[in-house]
Amino acid sequence: MVTNLAQTDGDFSLNGLPNAGRMDVICRCVNSAFWLSDNLRNDTVFYIVMRGAPNPPITLKFVGEELKRMSPDERNIASHIKNLLSTKPGKIWQTDGMGLYAKKIDLDGLLGEIKGEIIYLDKNGKIEELKEDFVYVMGDNKGYSEKDIELLSKKGKKVSLGKTEYLSSQCITIINYKLDG
Amino acid sequence: MVTNLAQTDGDFSLNGLPNAGRMDVICRCVNSAFWLSDNLRNDTVFYIVMRGAPNPPITLKFVGEELKRMSPDERNIASHIKNLLSTKPGKIWQTDGMGLYAKKIDLDGLLGEIKGEIIYLDKNGKIEELKEDFVYVMGDNKGYSEKDIELLSKKGKKVSLGKTEYLSSQCITIINYKLDG
Repeated sequence: MVTNLAQTDGDFSLNGLPNAGRMDVICRCVNSAFWLSDNLRNDTVFYIVMRGAPNPPITLKFVGEELKRMSPDERNIASHIKNLLSTKPGKIWQTDGMGLYAKKIDLDGLLGEIKGEIIYLDKNGKIEELKEDFVYVMGDNKGYSEKDIELLSKKGKKVSLGKTEYLSSQCITIINYKLDG
Repeated sequence: MVTNLAQTDGDFSLNGLPNAGRMDVICRCVNSAFWLSDNLRNDTVFYIVMRGAPNPPITLKFVGEELKRMSPDERNIASHIKNLLSTKPGKIWQTDGMGLYAKKIDLDGLLGEIKGEIIYLDKNGKIEELKEDFVYVMGDNKGYSEKDIELLSKKGKKVSLGKTEYLSSQCITIINYKLDG
């Protein structure tokens, strides 16, 4: 997930997540990516490229099989993010030991690190069967930057979930549902 | 939606929604039921039958076309619920004037008030095409009570979203996605 808004340090209030560059959006996406009724999706890794003030870019990485002591509510997920961002992550992956990592890297560098074919969500893309083992890329509520689109159109395939435009967290749920089969 | 846990007065902290009988679950369901990327689902009405302490049952009703001054984050949705519950709703629908209503009524009474064929989610139900203009009923993270199942099996049809058990909020997203077509 790419967001041009999300605040890139830990200096935000857990009582005002929307004011931290829509940190609430990110937390709902994490919920959708990992939680099921009775367990977590251990096979999922979820990245969030964040470009808000004051220290962009920072990329968060949530690793399903390592997640610990995290609850599915926005406030709890945000508290983990806040704590890790407060350690001022640098150019190597830094972790909180509970499944969350952070690093100073942008989308182009990240896509160089991740293996797998790239599929990116775009309302003008084709509607087609989704498959496992792809890297799914999506924007936030403000969409991609022009530079993102240039990069993604070179590296990946554009797909759409239909004519309705869903929240990012809902897109994740729908993709998971389609992959669950 | 039916939840046997949710707290039925406004005496809870917005900083501890999971402790208010999983009020976070309800708020995520409201988010999933109404929000899209660029607007709200005006054609949706969402009921939550709540049976937690201290004043069960209370049913909340969110009316899409009347929703005002509500943000999609859990804390904001919870603040609307808390304010209305604090007015101690009685046996007629009481409203905050912003699209949220509450009344002292349980599932059996409610199903008598709502028109439309009833479909209820159950992991043992059939997987089939969902259709518009139905009343969809679902449990929370703890499922239905025995009395609910008895009532629902008399009045409605049991359907399943497949072998994966999703969060209630994810079930709502998936149903909406299937109905959007």
